[in-house]
Order: sequence, then structure tokens, then C-alpha cells
Amino acid sequence: MKEELKKMLLGFPMLTEEEMQLILDSSDVRAYKKGSMLLREGEVAKNCYSVLKGMVREYVVVDGEEKTTNFYTEGQPVNAFTSATSQTSSKVNWVCSERCVLAVGTESLEEEMCRLIPKLEGIIRKEVERYTGETQDELAFFMTSTPEQRYLRLIEKRPDLYHRAPQHQIASYLGITPESLSRIRKRIFSKKAVN
Amino acid sequence: MKEELKKMLLGFPMLTEEEMQLILDSSDVRAYKKGSMLLREGEVAKNCYSVLKGMVREYVVVDGEEKTTNFYTEGQPVNAFTSATSQTSSKVNWVCSERCVLAVGTESLEEEMCRLIPKLEGIIRKEVERYTGETQDELAFFMTSTPEQRYLRLIEKRPDLYHRAPQHQIASYLGITPESLSRIRKRIFSKKAVN
Repeated sequence: MKEELKKMLLGFPMLTEEEMQLILDSSDVRAYKKGSMLLREGEVAKNCYSVLKGMVREYVVVDGEEKTTNFYTEGQPVNAFTSATSQTSSKVNWVCSERCVLAVGTESLEEEMCRLIPKLEGIIRKEVERYTGETQDELAFFMTSTPEQRYLRLIEKRPDLYHRAPQHQIASYLGITPESLSRIRKRIFSKKAVN
Repeated sequence: MKEELKKMLLGFPMLTEEEMQLILDSSDVRAYKKGSMLLREGEVAKNCYSVLKGMVREYVVVDGEEKTTNFYTEGQPVNAFTSATSQTSSKVNWVCSERCVLAVGTESLEEEMCRLIPKLEGIIRKEVERYTGETQDELAFFMTSTPEQRYLRLIEKRPDLYHRAPQHQIASYLGITPESLSRIRKRIFSKKAVN
């Protein structure tokens, strides 16, 4: 299972062969069944994850209804910073919505790795900054876009989601009802048919 | 003007007197007139800021209309991670919507400071993680809340904004029209009057 982690590490050319092997040896890679809960609302997030294979869905329960707030797929980190860093109850749930292979991270593992490979500190920092930028961009986009614009961006940037997640979860992720999603799709399809 | 920075640094008790003085001496604190543009859409973000006094508004122009995506006030960092770290065009604008006193940060200043005070590296990292958590929470909340819930949260968490920003900017920040904001306020007011 560590093959997937190795593939991901190849994306960091600043790591030597030895360093990569050290990470592979120390890392904790696990397989999860579809439906496994990684974090429940109210718990403190002890682990973070990196998706090597599969998909993790993040959701919040509002008035008894699941609202999807994220889909994490191959290459993405799954991290609840507020809960993990300030040891507070998580507001979100994480469920494996496919069979998953995940690298499991803990604070102590990260510290140990950074002690063994000091340059990891800088690499992790850059990754956190990149992730923070993406989250900022997502927020600004969500605040200023129409549901149709969100749909168009989703099929452009993450076309795989469309085949991996059921429609009602996609709709919820876009902040609309399944009926609205269906109307948007029809409208776009008929525009394309005209052009 | 560095008095405000000193006050902020007192929030980090792990810094010694000498380290605090070193930061104060090396820091770049500037005053800005109301209306000063700190970043324009399309530019690469070279600086980040820390608001010591005043308010910076972040907005995106959509179909000729300014949509407010953030208000940064005292104690908050103003940072466009994607633009700054990957040297790409910023999607947002930053304007001083009040007279401001800001600590101006650049990558080289940060590197120099971390060289002088190595523990700063860890402090900055924790701050970035805290900020990332807040941005994640904001995004999940915005995706799953009604405009009324967003309004209630705003007056609970950031009551000062209500007096510092014009209504149309507040409305835009909540993702609604000024008319909807006015209706929400009336509804809440009449509920309170009944109870």
C-alpha cells in the first residue's frame, strides 16, 4: 500500500532517495472500508490524513440533514486545523465514501519526522500555505458566485467528482437542492445544443 | 506608531523582552489614508499585512459590482497566500476602508526575522494554522448557513463591523442584497419584540 505514498512523494524532488525511504518506513498507511467514519462532529481531531486512494466526504448535519462541505480525493490533505490545534470539538464529520488508502498523520509523528529530516519543516509549511490559499480562494469564490458558476467550475476543475458522488451530495456541496442542480444542467445542456 | 505592534506582541508570552525589541526595531509599520489600495486584482501580492489599527476591506469585482469577501480589523492578518506563494495574479482587491496603521511583511523580512529569532518560525506556523482553521470554518459555515444565520453570527462575533461598514457592504459580505438584509433585521427585531 505504500506504493501510492511513494508516488506522492515523487512530487517533492527536494527529497533524496534516503529521505524518501525514511518517510516510507516511518509512515502509517492504512486501508479503510467504504463508510468508515474518520471523524465525528463533537470529537477532537487527533489525526490528519492524506488521501492516497479513494474519497473522503466532509459534511455537517443541519436540522437532521447532511450538508456536504468537501470531497477529498487523491493527493489532498484532510485536516481540521481548528479542532486539532486548539483541541476543540470538530464541527464536521469525515466519512470514507469509497474504499480508501490513507496516510495517517499525528502531531507526534510529524514532529518525529521533522526531527529526522529537518527540511520537512519547510516542505510542510509550504504545503500548509498552499492549502490555506486554496481555502481562501474557495471561500471568496463561493461567496461571490452563482450556483451555475459553481457548477461550471466544479465540472471544469474536478470532473471526476461527478461520477464518484451521488447527485444529492454534489447539489448540497454547491449549496442548492437536487432539483436546482437538475435545472442548471438542463439549462447548460440546452445552451450548448443551440451553439 | 509601533506602540500598537508592541501591544500585539504582548499576546506572545514566549517572546523575551529582547526578542520583542528586535522585532519592533526590524518591523515596518506604516500609516495609510482611507481609500489606499494595498492590492489590486491582477497584481501579484508582494506584501502581507497585520492590522494594528483600522480596517481593510477585501472585495472582488463581479459584473462591474464590488462584492465584499472580507473585513480585516485590529489583530487580523491580511494575506493572499495563493498569489504570494505561487506568484500568480491576485483575484481580490484590498482597500483601507478607514485610516489604517499596518505592519507590512515581506518574505525576505520574515526570513531575516526567523534567522534572528529562530523560535519565530514555530510561532508563525501556529498562527498560519490557526488562520487556516478559521478560514476552513468560515467556508463550511458559509456553505451550510442561511443568510439569517450568517447575519446573527456576524452581530455576535463581530459586532463592531456593523458600525464600521456601510450596509450595502455588509449585505454583500453576507451574500445578499441590502433589501434582504433590511428584511432580516426587521424580522429579528419583531421576533425580539414579541418575546
